[in-house]
Amino acid sequence: LTDFGVQDTYAGVLEAVIARIAPEAHVLHLSHGVPPQAVSQGALMLADAVPYLPVGVHVAVVDPGVGTSRRAIAVESPDGRRFVGPDNGLLPAAAEAGGGIVAVHELTNAAYRLEGVSATFHGRDLFAPAAAHLALGVAVGELGPAVDPAELVRLPRPYYAVSDGRIESDCVLVDRFGNSWVAVTPDEAEEAGITLGDRVSVTAAGRQRGTAVRARTFGEVGERELVLYATSWGRLALGVRGGDAARTLGCAPGDRIRLDRLT
Amino acid sequence: LTDFGVQDTYAGVLEAVIARIAPEAHVLHLSHGVPPQAVSQGALMLADAVPYLPVGVHVAVVDPGVGTSRRAIAVESPDGRRFVGPDNGLLPAAAEAGGGIVAVHELTNAAYRLEGVSATFHGRDLFAPAAAHLALGVAVGELGPAVDPAELVRLPRPYYAVSDGRIESDCVLVDRFGNSWVAVTPDEAEEAGITLGDRVSVTAAGRQRGTAVRARTFGEVGERELVLYATSWGRLALGVRGGDAARTLGCAPGDRIRLDRLT
Amino acid sequence: LTDFGVQDTYAGVLEAVIARIAPEAHVLHLSHGVPPQAVSQGALMLADAVPYLPVGVHVAVVDPGVGTSRRAIAVESPDGRRFVGPDNGLLPAAAEAGGGIVAVHELTNAAYRLEGVSATFHGRDLFAPAAAHLALGVAVGELGPAVDPAELVRLPRPYYAVSDGRIESDCVLVDRFGNSWVAVTPDEAEEAGITLGDRVSVTAAGRQRGTAVRARTFGEVGERELVLYATSWGRLALGVRGGDAARTLGCAPGDRIRLDRLT
Repeated sequence: LTDFGVQDTYAGVLEAVIARIAPEAHVLHLSHGVPPQAVSQGALMLADAVPYLPVGVHVAVVDPGVGTSRRAIAVESPDGRRFVGPDNGLLPAAAEAGGGIVAVHELTNAAYRLEGVSATFHGRDLFAPAAAHLALGVAVGELGPAVDPAELVRLPRPYYAVSDGRIESDCVLVDRFGNSWVAVTPDEAEEAGITLGDRVSVTAAGRQRGTAVRARTFGEVGERELVLYATSWGRLALGVRGGDAARTLGCAPGDRIRLDRLT
Repeated sequence: LTDFGVQDTYAGVLEAVIARIAPEAHVLHLSHGVPPQAVSQGALMLADAVPYLPVGVHVAVVDPGVGTSRRAIAVESPDGRRFVGPDNGLLPAAAEAGGGIVAVHELTNAAYRLEGVSATFHGRDLFAPAAAHLALGVAVGELGPAVDPAELVRLPRPYYAVSDGRIESDCVLVDRFGNSWVAVTPDEAEEAGITLGDRVSVTAAGRQRGTAVRARTFGEVGERELVLYATSWGRLALGVRGGDAARTLGCAPGDRIRLDRLT
Repeated sequence: LTDFGVQDTYAGVLEAVIARIAPEAHVLHLSHGVPPQAVSQGALMLADAVPYLPVGVHVAVVDPGVGTSRRAIAVESPDGRRFVGPDNGLLPAAAEAGGGIVAVHELTNAAYRLEGVSATFHGRDLFAPAAAHLALGVAVGELGPAVDPAELVRLPRPYYAVSDGRIESDCVLVDRFGNSWVAVTPDEAEEAGITLGDRVSVTAAGRQRGTAVRARTFGEVGERELVLYATSWGRLALGVRGGDAARTLGCAPGDRIRLDRLT
């Protein structure tokens, strides 16, 4: 998972570097569509996907601090997954989804990187080689010195507040369909008294944008209507049946969304 | 083939789910670029590609009705292909390209889906698991009860009309290069008296946009000129040499295109 | 590597055609994001990636002349790589990156193409099949008659000029992050007296757009500041920390960029 996009050769070269070191490794591209340098969104995407991924080595690169003193790390979780990437908050949530953090090591061992590591493409020169060597059976501990898991950079949870009949939250992700995710679960909405069938007023980025129905799926609302539904990843999102909620709402990741139950 | 795009993890997670169930399966991503919820365009893209695909299991998900009562199905064709996806018209044309429909079964057997199927992501929870089990050797009939092929949802053929010197057709697809496909074959154009070397007046979305030359390839017209050519999939399309026909024509899938032979 | 993009089935069908001929071949997608018909940018992307790719068969298709008399070729380099694509300048730089050109053959042998080659999709009908047969062990010489390497179409080097305190160059590539590459190396900049820590005035597409700091990495300049850095592929580029240099500079591939050292 990276923010490399698919227009350049960056993502393909990661696979190529892995293929040279570990030709038998099965490389699966989870996504290269994290918005540029959006570490928290990348962390969310990776953590949500972990339960569906085969146990293996997961390389994640969203790395605005490449070339600075931020650490390069490998994190091991108790279910045998290993996560490789920058120490900027991208990996801990994913490791938690894998059951926690058993060990963290810094990627300092020159035997497991390309010669002449560049200052701007650690995905290619550092992270992909380390991942390939892990796939070959190298132990995480051989990559470099142990790091105290408590020292890892961790991201703040996105803003959210839930009270009777009201949910306020950052928009944490807008997907390809324009569905706009908030950092609140269906259970938390239920506690706030917002349940299936309720109507809510939707305010996004400071402007009231319409009303949504809390429903199970898009087919339960009318064409072009807003629906407040549970994503298949366990959070609430706003969608528009046959449309694009982010466009309807004028919202983007980081914007504040407020939902008020209508009586 | 899906409309999931490449910005999210949806497509990667499909492969991951398959890899967990059938680790030896070779997963080939045909395209995730079907426009959101464009079932008929997805059906066209899949059917056109079938003759080039290895015989195997083909998962297709363009599924605006996910979570509603639309059926989830697997379709078998006589050449041994199996198609997995929603019963919304996406699959029949592809099965016909595989020689017809031998059997249809509804995906109801809980043994071949993920636990806790979500209301909004059947690609991950239902279709990918079913496909993986088929790849492992499970028979289509084990997935659930047989469905009468005559009961499948089928899409209308896009609008087209051919008369002497005139072709009218829906634009059925705009590709990455801006080439704008119509639902008419070169043979049908020939019957209408539009043959190699002819000039046609092009009307798109109600406005006359210029003239095109019926030619074999882009190199036969001048730079920035419109060309009416046979795509490599057997239909006619309008292109612009060194340019983008959809932009030149101001047209999108679903718009009406009219071609009139100039004397 | 192609300019097919990811919205259509074109790239997936290439892999499918290869999989039918050579089911055991490992297909790696380097990139399908070359801008439409941008041969020189495709040549640059491929050549830069070669040192990181496993030795094997490399198919590249950026082919505005498809269906015309331009040749279809396979090029062999001394390290065992074989490059398959159109003879329009796309391949020579990549072969040089593989050590040079040992042999060139024209793809004329009908045994190694699909039946009924179309006029508009040689990637599918000609290049992918040839590559698959090479992967199966067919020798380059069996694909067709030898071509004199001196006769290959070659691209001019992009414009650049270096003098004391000044660099002028075409912008040769804008990547996903908006980083804008020039055709000048850090060593050439050094010869021009532009070294780490220097400030340069940046003129793009004829307008002065700001100043950049020659630095090793983005972290060494302030948020939203322009940085002139060495890409990990060995050329200079302009970036913006936390931003998009192409947008800041208003530049695109082919535009002229001028850098003047500030005293």
